[in-house]
Amino acid sequence: MRKVAIVGVGQTPVREHWESSLRDLAVTALRDAMDDAGTDTVDGVCVGNMLSGALSEQEHLGSLIVDYAGLDGVEGMKIEAACGSGAAAIRMAVKAVASGLMDTVGVVGVEKLTEFSGKYSTAALATAADADYETTMGLTFVGINALLMRRYMHEYKADKNDFSIFPVNAHQNAVHNPDAMFRYPITENQYINSKFIADPINLMDSSPIADGAAAVIVCAMENVSQFKGHPAAILACEVGTDTIALDNRKNPLWLRGVERSVKKAYYVSGLGPKDIDFFEVHDAFSIITALSLEASGFADKGKALQFASETGIGIKGGLPLTTCGGLKGRGHPVGATGVYQVVEAAKQIRGEVSEKIQVEKNNIAMAQNIGGSGATVITTILKKV
Amino acid sequence: MRKVAIVGVGQTPVREHWESSLRDLAVTALRDAMDDAGTDTVDGVCVGNMLSGALSEQEHLGSLIVDYAGLDGVEGMKIEAACGSGAAAIRMAVKAVASGLMDTVGVVGVEKLTEFSGKYSTAALATAADADYETTMGLTFVGINALLMRRYMHEYKADKNDFSIFPVNAHQNAVHNPDAMFRYPITENQYINSKFIADPINLMDSSPIADGAAAVIVCAMENVSQFKGHPAAILACEVGTDTIALDNRKNPLWLRGVERSVKKAYYVSGLGPKDIDFFEVHDAFSIITALSLEASGFADKGKALQFASETGIGIKGGLPLTTCGGLKGRGHPVGATGVYQVVEAAKQIRGEVSEKIQVEKNNIAMAQNIGGSGATVITTILKKV
Repeated sequence: MRKVAIVGVGQTPVREHWESSLRDLAVTALRDAMDDAGTDTVDGVCVGNMLSGALSEQEHLGSLIVDYAGLDGVEGMKIEAACGSGAAAIRMAVKAVASGLMDTVGVVGVEKLTEFSGKYSTAALATAADADYETTMGLTFVGINALLMRRYMHEYKADKNDFSIFPVNAHQNAVHNPDAMFRYPITENQYINSKFIADPINLMDSSPIADGAAAVIVCAMENVSQFKGHPAAILACEVGTDTIALDNRKNPLWLRGVERSVKKAYYVSGLGPKDIDFFEVHDAFSIITALSLEASGFADKGKALQFASETGIGIKGGLPLTTCGGLKGRGHPVGATGVYQVVEAAKQIRGEVSEKIQVEKNNIAMAQNIGGSGATVITTILKKV
Repeated sequence: MRKVAIVGVGQTPVREHWESSLRDLAVTALRDAMDDAGTDTVDGVCVGNMLSGALSEQEHLGSLIVDYAGLDGVEGMKIEAACGSGAAAIRMAVKAVASGLMDTVGVVGVEKLTEFSGKYSTAALATAADADYETTMGLTFVGINALLMRRYMHEYKADKNDFSIFPVNAHQNAVHNPDAMFRYPITENQYINSKFIADPINLMDSSPIADGAAAVIVCAMENVSQFKGHPAAILACEVGTDTIALDNRKNPLWLRGVERSVKKAYYVSGLGPKDIDFFEVHDAFSIITALSLEASGFADKGKALQFASETGIGIKGGLPLTTCGGLKGRGHPVGATGVYQVVEAAKQIRGEVSEKIQVEKNNIAMAQNIGGSGATVITTILKKV
């Protein structure tokens, strides 16, 4: 089994992209990553996407993107794992390269959500939940997360206002990321006065839907010298799953998918939570950040808010989170998000982000991409080479 | 890189499954394959599916099926490549096992199409085509294939009636496959008098939509003795792609995706067309069978019909095709079809199909699964162990 690395990264800004099609976005990010790596060819392309079929009436993205990227005839496939599709595609690329079946694989996560009315995008996003046991009852995806947040507040006597630490930090960092969607800070007061979407989740607890594409080039570690992009080693890219429906979980406040994924990632990398210099957490909702910090081994059960406040999650904190804005500040083009997270982690490791958000300790990065409310979790650990 | 094998197969009948949900079908096939292999666990599950999001409002099939199959927490992901999704999922499993990252992977292809009105399923199937340049013009997927067939008849002076050889053979074989949807023979005369769907494609040129699931268990060749299922070696499982839109192809009658896929498959297996004992061809439409025979190196350009008639494509012919009924006779649950093809090929190799359709030379099987009208092609070559 070969060791693998990332030698190229690319991304489009996260925006409402009214003038670019799905394929435009994907090809732009993919070719950017190839340029960054200094390569004109790849052996295959893994596409992370969730909703092109339901919203854009376009499945079959693998060969579509291969063709429009000018990669005549190479293997291309779409991988779907709800909002975890992006990192799931990276996982598939790792397998392809680790096996020796391919030397260089392009991964592109892409999603286009904003041109559809909220009715359609809300219904489409709910396909991440259990259609027969959750969605059919009228539960939306925000609703599911509201149940989790309410339960957390009840079980752990958590103060709703204390969740503000996550979105305030995310927006603060997004200010300095030119590709972020929301480049403005928010205050705790704005959080508190923000309107509810699904009580207790307010607008500032919830990441925005968005359009965008991000890409990485994965190659064998033994070949990194063939590329011009500065490499980042992939120490781990590991998957854990859980039941989709919340009511099937013994303890909905304990994300077993996260626990399984990070345990594997720590095991194969030989690292633990204390070794992680910064963490690109999947802050689709503030509650998910809290639950992820606990199941990933950073905070004790019910203590994520206290941990965040005591340890510090800002750029100079003990565990910087969402250093480029996270899902909340950068925006959440669902099937692309997992790739954005890894691109941002790689750029931090290379020292290529804006000075204001460059973390000082940038040796080991962890990025965690979550599908559904924890049913698919992919944890990637990168290391400076 | 490790060599890989199939040590378990399972499938549901191909039917209108009104009483089984998508997850029921998938879990039934997967557990059947695991029972056949004699294993209670797998390290991961690859799901081949095209349309669960658009039709069943259910994405995120990876963790859903893992959970309902009782495979608590293992990796599960969906792979989509239009009608090629099934074999694409097998390809992903091959990578996982070849890499050493996983020892045993379950692959399940599943699709549920018949409970939706034709309006929805026709639109959903058209997402395999190019949404911006084909579908938006009102072209359906059958329409695209009708263009190809008309062009073939014009270019090669082919007689429409001569295409009957493919569906007549498929139905003849389906009679003896208890899991096939259409277990009755048809005559050339019935073909000729069959009504048109999209001229020149008639009802007998076109495979039916259907519900069903099929599964295989992939393991490392070095581990086959740990399983009770009789193994079949996977000599090749290779992908070629092409443009999706027909108008972007230099010669629409030459399936470059097929050519690329089989060239790779022949190369890695060290075999050629003459070594193939029988061929599970992707007979979604009669025209695709003809074009596949040509681009796969069996027949010269424009000579597929002559080849079929002279060589013989029946069970005792020179190149038996669609030995268990093919897409036309067995039925075409799109994202599951590629797995059905490989299950049937493995059963032929094991000598486990009905006597009437058991091929005599069953050493080397080729199965070819096609997404779109040739934009994604996966060619799998199996060998008796």
